[in-house]
Amino acid sequence: MRVYNFSAGPAVLPEEVLKEAAAEMLNYNGTGMSVMEMSHRSKAYQNIIDEAEADLRELMQIPDHYKVLFLQGGASQQFAMIPMNLMKNGVADYIITGQWAKKAWQEAKLYGKANAIASSEDETYSYIPDCSDLPVSEDADYVYICENNTIYGTKFHTLPNTKGKLLVSDVSSCFLSEPVDVSKYGVIYGGVQKNIGPAGVVIVIIREDLICDEVLPGTPTMLRYKIHADNGSMYNTPPAYGIYICGKVFKWLKANGGLAAMKERNEKKAAILYDFLDSSKLFKGTVRKEDRSLMNVPFVTGDKELDAQFVKEAEAAGFVNLKGHRSVGGMRASIYNAMPLEGVEKLVAFMKDFEEKNI
Amino acid sequence: MRVYNFSAGPAVLPEEVLKEAAAEMLNYNGTGMSVMEMSHRSKAYQNIIDEAEADLRELMQIPDHYKVLFLQGGASQQFAMIPMNLMKNGVADYIITGQWAKKAWQEAKLYGKANAIASSEDETYSYIPDCSDLPVSEDADYVYICENNTIYGTKFHTLPNTKGKLLVSDVSSCFLSEPVDVSKYGVIYGGVQKNIGPAGVVIVIIREDLICDEVLPGTPTMLRYKIHADNGSMYNTPPAYGIYICGKVFKWLKANGGLAAMKERNEKKAAILYDFLDSSKLFKGTVRKEDRSLMNVPFVTGDKELDAQFVKEAEAAGFVNLKGHRSVGGMRASIYNAMPLEGVEKLVAFMKDFEEKNI
Repeated sequence: MRVYNFSAGPAVLPEEVLKEAAAEMLNYNGTGMSVMEMSHRSKAYQNIIDEAEADLRELMQIPDHYKVLFLQGGASQQFAMIPMNLMKNGVADYIITGQWAKKAWQEAKLYGKANAIASSEDETYSYIPDCSDLPVSEDADYVYICENNTIYGTKFHTLPNTKGKLLVSDVSSCFLSEPVDVSKYGVIYGGVQKNIGPAGVVIVIIREDLICDEVLPGTPTMLRYKIHADNGSMYNTPPAYGIYICGKVFKWLKANGGLAAMKERNEKKAAILYDFLDSSKLFKGTVRKEDRSLMNVPFVTGDKELDAQFVKEAEAAGFVNLKGHRSVGGMRASIYNAMPLEGVEKLVAFMKDFEEKNI
Repeated sequence: MRVYNFSAGPAVLPEEVLKEAAAEMLNYNGTGMSVMEMSHRSKAYQNIIDEAEADLRELMQIPDHYKVLFLQGGASQQFAMIPMNLMKNGVADYIITGQWAKKAWQEAKLYGKANAIASSEDETYSYIPDCSDLPVSEDADYVYICENNTIYGTKFHTLPNTKGKLLVSDVSSCFLSEPVDVSKYGVIYGGVQKNIGPAGVVIVIIREDLICDEVLPGTPTMLRYKIHADNGSMYNTPPAYGIYICGKVFKWLKANGGLAAMKERNEKKAAILYDFLDSSKLFKGTVRKEDRSLMNVPFVTGDKELDAQFVKEAEAAGFVNLKGHRSVGGMRASIYNAMPLEGVEKLVAFMKDFEEKNI
């Protein structure tokens, strides 16, 4: 029996996708082999990656002057690739809304002057700072954000005013959860293991004019965007099976109404949980209301032992991975695209029941 | 119907492994979820990666003072990681036996003095140079080889005399094909997509004393061996599903007699093909006999049109991916661990038949 998996990532995938992958495991589309066994230079695999890119372009309405790259190394490797490729003036501004933004900022300091121009660390990143009039550096090559903060459950609902500077955004935990205007970004990227596919693929959507031969000295070949862009993400063997699963998820999203429908569904799911938290006598959310994420919902009872008891009983009832990150404590329900509505409804019913018994 | 897949990589995997993976796709071992959906911080996943490492250590008899790292980025990323982490004197010697060794050498030049101390480029890398008395640099941090050359079908059957210097070896295309003495190497590494698992995982076996904080300035955090060693290959989310498949292949190898049995089997398979090539009036091998690879067997008819006809007819008969690399031409049969004996026997029968019809 399948459980309701509220993991923050790697995370739940659509059951239809997994069923297809299982059915195709020994023989993909009449090729007589698994996608895992397929030469990345074969026509069959080229079709898989081409379709994945085309479907993603359609879903996100990615303008033609943006490249889509399927890379390895996760967001953590992008923390270095971004400054190595984009720091022409050696200056970048970072908005620190959580652990991942902070790590990106610290990594950038290896390569130039990386300024933290705003932070919500003072309140355990439980809110998004006002970014309407930040001291953006005059010579900043870019302004960097982590758009949805997995650990803390916050989201930029309004993009920062970058005062004309390039915006670079890590969307790992809100990727494809709602429509976005790609043209507002210089680079929009994310690890796929939360909302799209298996860990080991990071998708980078980058404006073409930012891709160039000039990178910082000592940049490894594999960390140059241009190498990957020039070779259609196949400079070396790509994480082929992961990209194949991502492609299946793109088709699942298209079949389910695309990103507008996903947004509606995600808002409905999140509302069920947040409305309950706002009315509960036992549980409460940890994030400033206007900054709440649609994807990651942290909550606490205020009593560590009761939190632990809840996590344990929930697991026994088939609601798994609800333990919060150690820096926030309590619980966190990650309700990505593939989490069905009834998963959230049943979780709330379980929470109500727990509340009645423990208040 | 499954084909006989002679791809150079990604390549054939054991059918038993694929069947198990398919069966576990929706519910791994009673967890109620796919391994793709599993938090890498969960107990279930920790067991998977721990078992994979333990099985690999057992198979290769890896000494305790070597670390095993499961990383991303393929061999191509190691081309940078190796000098960035190991070039303490800024000097390294490379033996150029093919395109991949050459790429590694060129990458190392970004970071220090990288010398090509031997090469077989003069004869399209169809042999392994005599490495018994090379001009190893006095202050070389390491001597680098690509132990099995996928494109050209050569293999170092004797390791080079490094005159006391550290040996670093890329074993991507001969990984686990026969027993090795790990203690002869400083670093032994390979992408898994040829003989072990799906593309997107690279396994690095590195002597503990080589792992340290001192790396070249500007080395990205993700490119430091120490970060990965200190975090059990989980500094960030690892390519979790790929590692799981590798683990299954390790168990398959153990169940099939380990590396000694694999060597015997691989020698038998290769002999069938090489013996035929040596007696054929139509086909001939392209590699100096004493340097032949057990894994990759290039051959030609001497007539490009006939080569193309062979590849086409073979494909129609269920023997796929036999086209040679463009730099060698002709054909190449990659006969990794998972290629069954009967696949090679049937290929040779097909070749005999083709020869009779076309001579």
